[in-house]
Amino acid sequence: MEDLQAIVDGIHAKLQPRLGEGKVADYIPQLAHVDPKKFGITVITVDGKVFKAGDSDTPFSIQSVSKVFTLTLALGKHGETTWNRVGREPSGSAFNSIVQLEHEEGKPRNPFINAGAIAISDLVLAGHTPREAIGEIIRFVRYLADDESIAIDPSVAKSEQATGYRNFALANFMRSFGKLTHPVEHVLGVYFHHCALAMTCTQLAHSALFLAAGGRNPLTGHRVVSEQRARRINALMLTCGHYDGSGEFAYRVGLPGKSGVGGGIMAVAPGKASVAVWSPGLNHNGNSLIGSLALEMLAAETGWSVFD
Amino acid sequence: MEDLQAIVDGIHAKLQPRLGEGKVADYIPQLAHVDPKKFGITVITVDGKVFKAGDSDTPFSIQSVSKVFTLTLALGKHGETTWNRVGREPSGSAFNSIVQLEHEEGKPRNPFINAGAIAISDLVLAGHTPREAIGEIIRFVRYLADDESIAIDPSVAKSEQATGYRNFALANFMRSFGKLTHPVEHVLGVYFHHCALAMTCTQLAHSALFLAAGGRNPLTGHRVVSEQRARRINALMLTCGHYDGSGEFAYRVGLPGKSGVGGGIMAVAPGKASVAVWSPGLNHNGNSLIGSLALEMLAAETGWSVFD
Amino acid sequence: MEDLQAIVDGIHAKLQPRLGEGKVADYIPQLAHVDPKKFGITVITVDGKVFKAGDSDTPFSIQSVSKVFTLTLALGKHGETTWNRVGREPSGSAFNSIVQLEHEEGKPRNPFINAGAIAISDLVLAGHTPREAIGEIIRFVRYLADDESIAIDPSVAKSEQATGYRNFALANFMRSFGKLTHPVEHVLGVYFHHCALAMTCTQLAHSALFLAAGGRNPLTGHRVVSEQRARRINALMLTCGHYDGSGEFAYRVGLPGKSGVGGGIMAVAPGKASVAVWSPGLNHNGNSLIGSLALEMLAAETGWSVFD
Amino acid sequence: MEDLQAIVDGIHAKLQPRLGEGKVADYIPQLAHVDPKKFGITVITVDGKVFKAGDSDTPFSIQSVSKVFTLTLALGKHGETTWNRVGREPSGSAFNSIVQLEHEEGKPRNPFINAGAIAISDLVLAGHTPREAIGEIIRFVRYLADDESIAIDPSVAKSEQATGYRNFALANFMRSFGKLTHPVEHVLGVYFHHCALAMTCTQLAHSALFLAAGGRNPLTGHRVVSEQRARRINALMLTCGHYDGSGEFAYRVGLPGKSGVGGGIMAVAPGKASVAVWSPGLNHNGNSLIGSLALEMLAAETGWSVFD
Repeated sequence: MEDLQAIVDGIHAKLQPRLGEGKVADYIPQLAHVDPKKFGITVITVDGKVFKAGDSDTPFSIQSVSKVFTLTLALGKHGETTWNRVGREPSGSAFNSIVQLEHEEGKPRNPFINAGAIAISDLVLAGHTPREAIGEIIRFVRYLADDESIAIDPSVAKSEQATGYRNFALANFMRSFGKLTHPVEHVLGVYFHHCALAMTCTQLAHSALFLAAGGRNPLTGHRVVSEQRARRINALMLTCGHYDGSGEFAYRVGLPGKSGVGGGIMAVAPGKASVAVWSPGLNHNGNSLIGSLALEMLAAETGWSVFD
Repeated sequence: MEDLQAIVDGIHAKLQPRLGEGKVADYIPQLAHVDPKKFGITVITVDGKVFKAGDSDTPFSIQSVSKVFTLTLALGKHGETTWNRVGREPSGSAFNSIVQLEHEEGKPRNPFINAGAIAISDLVLAGHTPREAIGEIIRFVRYLADDESIAIDPSVAKSEQATGYRNFALANFMRSFGKLTHPVEHVLGVYFHHCALAMTCTQLAHSALFLAAGGRNPLTGHRVVSEQRARRINALMLTCGHYDGSGEFAYRVGLPGKSGVGGGIMAVAPGKASVAVWSPGLNHNGNSLIGSLALEMLAAETGWSVFD
Repeated sequence: MEDLQAIVDGIHAKLQPRLGEGKVADYIPQLAHVDPKKFGITVITVDGKVFKAGDSDTPFSIQSVSKVFTLTLALGKHGETTWNRVGREPSGSAFNSIVQLEHEEGKPRNPFINAGAIAISDLVLAGHTPREAIGEIIRFVRYLADDESIAIDPSVAKSEQATGYRNFALANFMRSFGKLTHPVEHVLGVYFHHCALAMTCTQLAHSALFLAAGGRNPLTGHRVVSEQRARRINALMLTCGHYDGSGEFAYRVGLPGKSGVGGGIMAVAPGKASVAVWSPGLNHNGNSLIGSLALEMLAAETGWSVFD
Repeated sequence: MEDLQAIVDGIHAKLQPRLGEGKVADYIPQLAHVDPKKFGITVITVDGKVFKAGDSDTPFSIQSVSKVFTLTLALGKHGETTWNRVGREPSGSAFNSIVQLEHEEGKPRNPFINAGAIAISDLVLAGHTPREAIGEIIRFVRYLADDESIAIDPSVAKSEQATGYRNFALANFMRSFGKLTHPVEHVLGVYFHHCALAMTCTQLAHSALFLAAGGRNPLTGHRVVSEQRARRINALMLTCGHYDGSGEFAYRVGLPGKSGVGGGIMAVAPGKASVAVWSPGLNHNGNSLIGSLALEMLAAETGWSVFD
């Protein structure tokens, strides 16, 4: 399918003049020092063909994109009881808002805002040590991407640990409502580490392929989750994957996706392909500005949309 | 496709024992006096086949389902500038919340919460009299459903006008921020009347068919909106169509849809079919309890979902 | 007490260079067109001596200062049951906020924010026509000030009626919770009219004298309210009299007081005197900027404070 | 003044049948295990006479009452710049609410809610170690009460440290906005320790006497703060001293006061006396239920009120 390579190349070319737009996350040095003009895109079709352009094989900090993987793990361990601990509604608020938590007694709205992902880390811990839980997460992502080289950047995790006051606030707040079962430090240890996963666009697209293919990795043949669960994770990404920019993303792109403040976005065209884009500059909702545009162009040119 | 008729009949049969569950809207007598055990379902495939069961040809008050039609009209008149007046994000709040309006200076989050639909009524007015605007809306819905018998129930409109204090509050609040351009009474006149449209499941499914078929009514051949706009209206229904139960509906049903407090839900399986269900008892988010279940069963049994 | 005249003259003189500071309320023409350099002050001691300076005998729109009079009337009619309809806590919010109303089901925090004063208007109506209730309020204020010339400015009332969308929003919102017993138009008719009372500083100080003298007008000898009720109205003015600037006013001035967007402030030094000041420019909380300063200077120079 | 002893005895007698009402704070064992029927009251007039009844010489955990002392210390160190870090408005919210902090970027509304007192602890630290700051606070309270036996209960401090998740949330949240200058652990170390001060009603009344006497301890003759500052601390206690029950306390009691979840309330009748009461059962705002009643009776029978 040479067309898809042409489309990917075209997107890369058309976005060149705009690279550098947006605001790079600067709350830790490791994110602040990334070259704002980096741009990568990888598309992998469900039959295993890979189309890529730009810095698609440069690792970056996937940050909140990792929340899709920990949610999948938590659902595997706890099934539908996961939803006793976290809702599945868009929050209507910023990614790190604490207001909703006070009004709803410490139960986060969904697993993709910070508070919700912290609750999911608590579920992934499930009585294990943080080290064990982190190990399990890494193994799971390597398995999804079929790539043993994927690793956590320890300096990113350490920086988050040292300055992540807002996340300490969220975790302690939930703890005060009895909504965490492990010590705050353990839960945040897991959370900060999975956010510090470093991956390339190509690795990320690989790891999302099971969501584009009904829950089964079409390359390895391994079933990761049931077809129903794959659909439901896609639904959550569509309604909640971009914080208070989720409606906008659904409107413009029309594909389930999850963004991170490192500038990555992982998206899924069910039955067709998985996609990962990366560009560090963020828009006012904290989602990659150029990355969102790239996905909008891709959706427009391929006609991929869950809405027709 | 006899299967589909069997599925529809099966849903009707399986839900019989549960009819009457939920809480019928009781803020006006016209809604309160509806038989809580009514249940109708109509599915129309894009090739025009109709499958129905139960009270699918009994008219009911479509209430907020009508917001999809007025949004479509407003987009036709004002194009993308519509979004200067109303956002397209899930609100994270109840259908009639005013809190978000205060924090965001009178601009509603999306066109499907009450405040947003009132802003859309203002846009549909566009300098005309309320009578003219209401006439235009009726003609549009009749055109979509290809059915000249569709009408507004004047007693419902009158009751809402007499007791709709919350909507008067929302409209006056927006007016205080300069966000309405017509008199509050005119805007609410339009709003209360389009909410008072009485339609059957079959009429409603007919009128939604263009959204299942890329913007064109496949039965008449008329193009209603562009393919892109159809996709985008579907996206809005998926992220915002069920108030603060939208995430739940996407998770369980996986189809774009819009509910009303009359107990109706209109849903779209893009490329496949449009659906309307009706059952008056509501869940705690104000969406039809049995209607939501019926759609969940339909999606499960047909495999229709935008997410795979 | 020639000292007091000297103090009053001194305040007048010292504030001359600052007259015109602040932002004159401009939401209706009648307020917007007031000369921003007007300044008046009248102090009346409990033994009946009057000390005044500047434009102390020029009538101005007392606006929310009138809420003290309607609260006093409502307490006279309904006693402590008044508090079933309105709280007595500072709101922590702006004078016209609707957020708290949504969270607390339509019961306003206190009688001095707009919503609370609207609830009080409903209580003053008590089955009468708006005209009768307005007549009763005028008679009451004339009786307090012992001055038959006090009147409502009908053009102000009419303007508020035509443009007071926010107040229509508040009233309809409360109505939607069943918290008003008369038609919204009647309640707001009373509310807009009492806010449109035009009074001079001297008239206003006269009318507040009963609150400085244990509930009895020391000039006429008439008991207006019990000693306990006078204390309690003073307490409400101190904690809630200046919206979300009430703490600031207590900190700086240390006297119970009530402000209005017309630039007036009525204050009480219990056992000593009543005071009224007027200067149209408002601070960011909607209280008279120069008027607040004048009262701070008066308190500092006389040593009047409830806090020592 | 034998009358005052009779009044105090009468209050003690009349409240006997109600002792045990309210809900004892139970979030740490040290508070939960206090006998709910304890009741003490001490009144000290500005001329040094002491009137007391009940358990007035039994030490209890003063908790938030201590915030008055740390505020006084912070004002001594930082003067009016203290108000750059904390406001002086009633919050309209519960003592431990975090919502306002999010809306106002980490600046607490006043020094008497938890967040505000934590900011004050940061100011008291002023570059010192927590141990030094805690030592300074103890010395200051001993000086105020002229009693070297006053001490902190280390088991209370330790329990709060181990379970005070909500306060950890508040502190980390403020830290995330750059509103704390010392490490969260240090700031909370100071905060938890000053809240763990154990004092008797008599000691507490002694330590508040300077606020009743224009800033000077009338027994020792030491000036603690200027007259103006004493007035202003009283103003803050009146508007903010009882969380979202402050308006109620002003209405019913009419005296500046500060409550703590240990069941203590310290109050001031300017120019007349200081008072401390203690009864562990709390009302729904977290203030001593019987203690509030005792002060209401005292105010009614002595005629003490700042409002007449």
